[in-house]
Amino acid sequence: MFWLSYSLAKKLARPLKLFSIADMKIAKNLLELAENAHKTAPLLRTVSTDQKNQALLKLADALEKDQAAILKANAIDLATSDLSDALKDRLSLSHNRLQAIADDVRSVASLPDPVGEIFETTRLPNGLLLQKKRVPLGVIGVIYEARPNVTVDIASLCLKTGNCAILRGGKETLNTNKALMKSIQKALAYSGIPKEAIQLIKSAQRSQVKQFIKLDQYIDMIIPRGGEGLHRFCREESTIPVITGGMGICHLFVDESANLHKAIDVIVNAKTQRPSACNALDTLLVHQAVAASFLPSITKILESKGVHFYLDQKAWDILKPENLSLFRHAKEQDWQTEWISLILGIKVVESIEEAMAHIEKYSRGHSDGILTEKQAHAQMFVEMVDSAAVYINASTRFTDGGQFGLGAEVAVSTQKLHARGPMGLKELTTYKWIVQGNYHSRD
Amino acid sequence: MFWLSYSLAKKLARPLKLFSIADMKIAKNLLELAENAHKTAPLLRTVSTDQKNQALLKLADALEKDQAAILKANAIDLATSDLSDALKDRLSLSHNRLQAIADDVRSVASLPDPVGEIFETTRLPNGLLLQKKRVPLGVIGVIYEARPNVTVDIASLCLKTGNCAILRGGKETLNTNKALMKSIQKALAYSGIPKEAIQLIKSAQRSQVKQFIKLDQYIDMIIPRGGEGLHRFCREESTIPVITGGMGICHLFVDESANLHKAIDVIVNAKTQRPSACNALDTLLVHQAVAASFLPSITKILESKGVHFYLDQKAWDILKPENLSLFRHAKEQDWQTEWISLILGIKVVESIEEAMAHIEKYSRGHSDGILTEKQAHAQMFVEMVDSAAVYINASTRFTDGGQFGLGAEVAVSTQKLHARGPMGLKELTTYKWIVQGNYHSRD
Repeated sequence: MFWLSYSLAKKLARPLKLFSIADMKIAKNLLELAENAHKTAPLLRTVSTDQKNQALLKLADALEKDQAAILKANAIDLATSDLSDALKDRLSLSHNRLQAIADDVRSVASLPDPVGEIFETTRLPNGLLLQKKRVPLGVIGVIYEARPNVTVDIASLCLKTGNCAILRGGKETLNTNKALMKSIQKALAYSGIPKEAIQLIKSAQRSQVKQFIKLDQYIDMIIPRGGEGLHRFCREESTIPVITGGMGICHLFVDESANLHKAIDVIVNAKTQRPSACNALDTLLVHQAVAASFLPSITKILESKGVHFYLDQKAWDILKPENLSLFRHAKEQDWQTEWISLILGIKVVESIEEAMAHIEKYSRGHSDGILTEKQAHAQMFVEMVDSAAVYINASTRFTDGGQFGLGAEVAVSTQKLHARGPMGLKELTTYKWIVQGNYHSRD
Repeated sequence: MFWLSYSLAKKLARPLKLFSIADMKIAKNLLELAENAHKTAPLLRTVSTDQKNQALLKLADALEKDQAAILKANAIDLATSDLSDALKDRLSLSHNRLQAIADDVRSVASLPDPVGEIFETTRLPNGLLLQKKRVPLGVIGVIYEARPNVTVDIASLCLKTGNCAILRGGKETLNTNKALMKSIQKALAYSGIPKEAIQLIKSAQRSQVKQFIKLDQYIDMIIPRGGEGLHRFCREESTIPVITGGMGICHLFVDESANLHKAIDVIVNAKTQRPSACNALDTLLVHQAVAASFLPSITKILESKGVHFYLDQKAWDILKPENLSLFRHAKEQDWQTEWISLILGIKVVESIEEAMAHIEKYSRGHSDGILTEKQAHAQMFVEMVDSAAVYINASTRFTDGGQFGLGAEVAVSTQKLHARGPMGLKELTTYKWIVQGNYHSRD
């Protein structure tokens, strides 16, 4: 330690550039939303669990009562959008879908509130009492596609955890989102929670997304929910911490010891139960000792479910496929592709080591599993494979907040900081250290 | 849920752009370091606690044995650098300092290994066994200034947690760091740990830092240890998650009920025990009911310790200072400044609410405290003040990994994701979900 002279001290002192973004051209409406949220966050920290649940139940009711207005707005969005049928399906609301969304909100209300929990308490040798207390993150920005259910989903999860949310949904769903926001605002007003707790970016300008993710003085976390492009864009441009995820290249390895009969069901489930999901199977690795007997049966069943195959040379030599519209030779690029569809890559490997090496190289760290009867292989696999979820004898499709018993899912993280895999309410919080002393000084 | 047609599926499929950084011009040496680390990370996951501790103890020995070479290299750095005396002092090593560094390494060896801990186990209703297991993050990049102790510090913490580290120390300390790396490499080789576990960026080019923090395909976390400028640079440029912190504008509020006699010691400690630290006091808030009696005595004592004061109008009116070289009128900018020196801002407030509002506005979320005898005020303060560490009747100087009993400190985080406040070994890890079933499929 050394003492600084006064003049040097002044030189070293760090002035806080509170408004460094002032140089950047931030749209006025955007800045206003961010400032509103930032100002509201302290109030939200103190809202009681009862008050938050009351708002959630009111929101569920409002969604039901406002059904006509919401569906009308949704019909306008559908009529004016030029999305593909698949994406229109995601955008589209119906009585049943809206009902399901309202039920989800009620279920969030019924979950335990993670905020306020004291989860570590230590009495230090000097007598200081040290506690870690779970608190809201503050302001959460979410960028997503034309999926109106996400609007309500995120609003309810942020509300439950005492966070302010700023939502930026796909422009194709703007009318629907505005209608949903009316119900949300009603619920907030009814429960005495400031309306700035949940806000929507109403501008359809894409350039605003770039500005949005640079408002680190106001926003604590960005959650992108969308494709690879959006995630990379946020990683590259955001000055706010970003949770990336929701993408996987998922593998199952059929070990030579696997129960092949039972393995078939798991693989069919992982590939076909919902092929558009990020936890669906992309690549099947099969031990060479069982490949000759297993590959014909598994491909036959998957074929009947509409699956197409990309085979490595060894698998090709075993299957000798004739129907070239169903079977192709796999190229390097194919192992690097998340199919989100009824395509499956198949590779025959010499050993568990080769399987793990393939996974190490191509997995995106989402969900990977082994099917085996050998405890030692299962052990080695979960030790070595570094993915958010590593499976022994189960379908990769279980990687999901609901399936993991979290009650809700904010996102599935495939990065390693803060949270990994399915993120529930707890992952929308942080902690603070509370230190209580008796006029303690440091020696 | 909907089924995708095969042609649409192919269109939707997401090819993994494994080498999107190929477009960027990355220095060859840098890319090589990153690739080495990335390849070595899987091996490091499996290194046993014993092996890691053996390497640490060997490192401590090597630092002692290699003392002559290290001090010689350090002398060259000192002779050729044009740093200020204060920074030269940080750069400088001596027998005693090197001994202290070696002792720190031994103390890291003696800490419990967080890796491998299963910290949550759930049996789901469907029979799946769900576990959360603590694992290394992978590859950690650290950017820091001319402080050779940080080189060994980070190397030992990363080694203990099974992480690969890539170190980028200030160019003024390159010779010293190279010498230290020789000792580190000896210890790794002795313990059978690949030398790529700990690597040093030897280039002095500043442009490489910018390239370094874009290597998100290889590196899992960036820890900048330096000033505001470096932190902001990393936030703005990095595509890898960044832990920002190490800066604070710290407040103590003297409530009207505080024991003023005891409060003096705490304030003197917070301001003067180590004014260059980020947890040192920057602004003292005093309740108006006690300001007239308290301000003259506290300023008199602090003055004798060399402290200069920036006063708000109310404090000025009470103190009516004559020595204008010690007392100035505080400007708006001053409340936004981290002094890291013997300067103290003083403001008289009407109420605890005004004190909390000031903290909400100006704190950087590092360490803020209240001195009070009223339980209700203490409660309100820790509830409302959203800082990494919130104090009741204690000096802010305690915010420190060592003081908090973490045994080691990687950094002090002032952002809210992943870790907040002092970060120890546990904060250099992440977790994976391990799911064990009996050929389970999802319904």
